[in-house]
Amino acid sequence: MPPKGFLFSGVNCGLKKEKPDLGIIYSEKPANWAGVFTTNAFKSAPVIVSQGKMDEKVRALVVNSGNANAGTGKEGISDAEEMCAEVARRLGIREEEVLVASTGVIGERLPMEKIKDGIKRAVEQLSPDNFSKFAEAIMTTDTFPKIVERELDGGKAFLLGIGKGAGMIHPQMATMLVFLLADADFPSHQLKECLKKAVDVSFHCLSVDGDTSTNDSVFLLANGMSEMDDVISFQQALNEACVDLAKMIARDGEGATKLILIKVMGAKSKEEARGVGRRIAVSPLVKTAFFGADPNVGRILCAIGNYPFETPPLVDIFIGGEKVAENGVIIKFDKEKMREFMKENREIEVEIELKRGNSSAIVYTCDLSYDYVKINAEYTT
Amino acid sequence: MPPKGFLFSGVNCGLKKEKPDLGIIYSEKPANWAGVFTTNAFKSAPVIVSQGKMDEKVRALVVNSGNANAGTGKEGISDAEEMCAEVARRLGIREEEVLVASTGVIGERLPMEKIKDGIKRAVEQLSPDNFSKFAEAIMTTDTFPKIVERELDGGKAFLLGIGKGAGMIHPQMATMLVFLLADADFPSHQLKECLKKAVDVSFHCLSVDGDTSTNDSVFLLANGMSEMDDVISFQQALNEACVDLAKMIARDGEGATKLILIKVMGAKSKEEARGVGRRIAVSPLVKTAFFGADPNVGRILCAIGNYPFETPPLVDIFIGGEKVAENGVIIKFDKEKMREFMKENREIEVEIELKRGNSSAIVYTCDLSYDYVKINAEYTT
Repeated sequence: MPPKGFLFSGVNCGLKKEKPDLGIIYSEKPANWAGVFTTNAFKSAPVIVSQGKMDEKVRALVVNSGNANAGTGKEGISDAEEMCAEVARRLGIREEEVLVASTGVIGERLPMEKIKDGIKRAVEQLSPDNFSKFAEAIMTTDTFPKIVERELDGGKAFLLGIGKGAGMIHPQMATMLVFLLADADFPSHQLKECLKKAVDVSFHCLSVDGDTSTNDSVFLLANGMSEMDDVISFQQALNEACVDLAKMIARDGEGATKLILIKVMGAKSKEEARGVGRRIAVSPLVKTAFFGADPNVGRILCAIGNYPFETPPLVDIFIGGEKVAENGVIIKFDKEKMREFMKENREIEVEIELKRGNSSAIVYTCDLSYDYVKINAEYTT
Repeated sequence: MPPKGFLFSGVNCGLKKEKPDLGIIYSEKPANWAGVFTTNAFKSAPVIVSQGKMDEKVRALVVNSGNANAGTGKEGISDAEEMCAEVARRLGIREEEVLVASTGVIGERLPMEKIKDGIKRAVEQLSPDNFSKFAEAIMTTDTFPKIVERELDGGKAFLLGIGKGAGMIHPQMATMLVFLLADADFPSHQLKECLKKAVDVSFHCLSVDGDTSTNDSVFLLANGMSEMDDVISFQQALNEACVDLAKMIARDGEGATKLILIKVMGAKSKEEARGVGRRIAVSPLVKTAFFGADPNVGRILCAIGNYPFETPPLVDIFIGGEKVAENGVIIKFDKEKMREFMKENREIEVEIELKRGNSSAIVYTCDLSYDYVKINAEYTT
């Protein structure tokens, strides 16, 4: 069940051939909101425009795929502002109440006539049931729409999360767009805190290819229409929704055939646990080995060793629960059996026990296949 | 012409099917030496053993390919020591005078009987002319042996460099082995200084896949047999030889079809220039675009933006001398012409003008192709 008072739409405006490429979310009541945005120095125009509305209550969100409106300078900013203005005009709300996001090719101006025409039709088609149309409209190289739902406080309110990922996915955000909508009632400073915590254990622990994009954004809107305000239950549902979306995004990484969960335990700090997990998650050698169902423990050990430890940790490594390295030394194990296990499973857990402390983290990533190369060698051509 | 007093050999001892997999370098006179080694926490056994001989003069170097002797614990250390002892015994020199290096699969014990048999035959075949046999013996997934030669001080002495690379190549060393041999005469502290400078502008500016291996080593030996001691001319030749080897290694990166030279100018510091260059060099999205001859400037801009600038730089970007971005904004250029240019050239220069200061750096990398995935998905199987 979608949260109360939110309407959705997704239409084609000509950025993609036929599929939906422009979506709108509308809230019947002004919503408090929070956002987490890319750390890339070249923030896209829509990121800059949306970040400028941090202190407003908002009513609507307009998103296009197929064109990132990044690397487009001042003209790009004007285009993003015009998108908001057009949505506001059509909905009879203020421009300041409209957020904007874009994803797609970097460095090209938006075709504003097409966009405006799309906005007109998207406003006409707004409906509470159209959230899957919206989810489709934000996809780029994603192979499936990503939607999660959570009850809040035993069904008193609802949380809906919609995301897209595929490429340029890395901690500190990526061409990843996530929209989290709740009819719960929280002030924006509390939303901000909750979102930060949820993003820390989910999207910041996610890496597809090590590239942080110019456009990454996570939006959380709460319109209060269900008057639920239990922050503990909200935080829990938000964390779960974000982790689920992060896993979906990793599983659907460009060309990915496998979801890899890297659990790092026994670290001296959260930062260390995540740092070690990320070294593994960004290693092309580890990722291609997983694609080839090759239990190449040496590459995992090597990737761990690239974390700047002061002394080599006495690390144990497990793949799918089976110990493959002990105290930093690779041990004998049944390679044929492990190969079979890696071939047959679309979700593989790698556990790293560092024996240095009590902190842990889970990092989500995927394998690196021929199709990643194919998709990315041919994306703009 | 190889430097005076160095003998070489390369034989097959059964680590590879037929090709040479074990090589020895022997110096008729004890040589001063310097080394730069991997920063990986899990240093391989041969790295640990060779690093322990920093204060010795050396006479010989034994190298095997096909097995990295890394992640092998105390037994691995014993094996590496035994390799040195066996070479010393066969050559009638002290064990302390023998350095050792290995490259190949991580996590498996060396087959010591095969290795010892190989050492016996390699010692028998030592000759000044066999350096190309040695260069073959250290290859793993390299497609060509890498050899550079330089005259020193107008032909008074000679420098010979032999390297191998292919995968796990990244700043701060990689499964990259380089052996630099000179008959010039320098104390080891001076060799150390010269090597550090040369490595800084060459191998530390090289990235194939972002992985720093457990085994990377650069050795510089000078046996003084030509009594040449002009440090300025030596440094210049050493830099040139190292840059040439770094380029060869990038060009021969696993699956690579193109060498990419990333010149970063106008940086606030050398560190910043290199940091920006590396962000581009490790981006799988940039590297796949080059493979696809796709002038995807947005990905380059995005990769630059992942460097932690305090404010977005007004960057200009040039590909093959043609301006494609100005002041951080992607500009119009003839994409078809650029595509042709990228298709036709095996060496492509990307220039980045940051307009922040006066420091610059060149970073060497290659594209990311289907064959990288193929080679690495199937390496140990």
